[in-house]
Amino acid sequence: MTKDENSRDHIQSLERGFAVLLAFDAERPNPTLAELASATGLSRPAVRRILLTLQRLGYVHGEGGRWSLTPRVLSIGQHYSASHALIEIAQPHLVRLAERTSESASLAALDGTDVVYIARVPVRRIMSINVSIGTRVPAHATSMGRVLLAWAPDSVVADVVGKDRLPAYTRHTITDPGELRRGLAQIRQSGYSIVAEELEDGLLSVAAPVRDRAGTVVAALASSTSSGRATVEQLRSQVAPLVVRTAEQISADYGHPAAVGKATSAVHTPRDGFF
Amino acid sequence: MTKDENSRDHIQSLERGFAVLLAFDAERPNPTLAELASATGLSRPAVRRILLTLQRLGYVHGEGGRWSLTPRVLSIGQHYSASHALIEIAQPHLVRLAERTSESASLAALDGTDVVYIARVPVRRIMSINVSIGTRVPAHATSMGRVLLAWAPDSVVADVVGKDRLPAYTRHTITDPGELRRGLAQIRQSGYSIVAEELEDGLLSVAAPVRDRAGTVVAALASSTSSGRATVEQLRSQVAPLVVRTAEQISADYGHPAAVGKATSAVHTPRDGFF
Repeated sequence: MTKDENSRDHIQSLERGFAVLLAFDAERPNPTLAELASATGLSRPAVRRILLTLQRLGYVHGEGGRWSLTPRVLSIGQHYSASHALIEIAQPHLVRLAERTSESASLAALDGTDVVYIARVPVRRIMSINVSIGTRVPAHATSMGRVLLAWAPDSVVADVVGKDRLPAYTRHTITDPGELRRGLAQIRQSGYSIVAEELEDGLLSVAAPVRDRAGTVVAALASSTSSGRATVEQLRSQVAPLVVRTAEQISADYGHPAAVGKATSAVHTPRDGFF
Repeated sequence: MTKDENSRDHIQSLERGFAVLLAFDAERPNPTLAELASATGLSRPAVRRILLTLQRLGYVHGEGGRWSLTPRVLSIGQHYSASHALIEIAQPHLVRLAERTSESASLAALDGTDVVYIARVPVRRIMSINVSIGTRVPAHATSMGRVLLAWAPDSVVADVVGKDRLPAYTRHTITDPGELRRGLAQIRQSGYSIVAEELEDGLLSVAAPVRDRAGTVVAALASSTSSGRATVEQLRSQVAPLVVRTAEQISADYGHPAAVGKATSAVHTPRDGFF
């Protein structure tokens, strides 16, 4: 579909409405109309009409010339969670993984070149950013992203891992497309991904694939820790097997037949922190 | 503003766009265009244009005549979390409260006659519904809702607690407006709310107010358990003081000066489950 064919069916005011909603962030939690106009590149009258509509729908609240998002905004995302059974199915497994490792457990899906956290049981904060449901991190520099890329269709991988060097976030970030692709092949072999300090110094994580009924990898399960609490070798020998097994159990509960046999052969693991 | 004055500034297509997004739910996770038209009451051509726009923006995905929400939808709610510093501030306190009680800890805000979960550390599932960020529950039948109502302006209380009997969810739900209002006065005295089996059989919870710099109650902190794990008396003597103190600590971190003194006079509590 070319842009011209498409534009007939494109509703500009809908796009602009989302642009205004997304202009509220940590740097601009209570913007004025003028600040929103400047942030979105829209005219003040256009922003004003959008804000009045959003206020009437209950998504924003205006007071004293400043605007803020209301908790109703969270209901939109809740419809994603409610319409994806995987999230409900995964929840008790995430709780158990977090208990066994004494570390935060996360589930993420791919969206463009990012992974998006779709479920999470926080134990402590180890990233400099505050991770909540909906938080986006670059796929190529995270264990969850690498797992999702390892089993993604070629076209999806090509969108993330092109021919050019990828952005570096630390001095450890793999930025060479060839090296990254070889890493993805390795993940398909081992069944998990460990990424150490490629997104942030001190941040380690291990991730494994979650599959649907058809065997398609639809999400990645991860356990994250800091370099002060575990080594990569400990992650590999102790946490990776637990993350892989938990991901298989989630897959089995989600209807993936191949995972059922593996998941039931549960291995005993200590209930408390095992580092 | 009357409806007529307002309508000039109301953008219908924006309202319709949200209606389509919110038509995806647990009962309708992968609707067809026809199902969405039926659910929203919009014409098929209108729904089609909205879906094509939402797809272009990355919020929905169409395949084989069926549509689904993408994880990008979660990013909208993430802007609420990112623009409300309270959520980031509360997070470590929620983790600690969940650890100390071995029960889920939640933070909620009022939205109309509902409370909306704005942060949560799940420990186990005790409600029949899957609670995630953005989940809505009726304010009048929950400890978090009662706390928020106890300190809400009269007009807000009047919207929730009118003159008519309120909906009952169990045989314990308080439905009499007068009794509910007397309960709110009691909460202002005690500083916390305990609600037992008014939303669901077997569900107990205790909540306390979180205040902003100006002393306004902006959220409620709750710990929830089941009647099989604790009695109301145990909640009152052991959990309520912990929830109140944690709420004061969050308030202090959020800049509420009156809470600072109280919060620093921390009382020793056992780290592990204390029932």
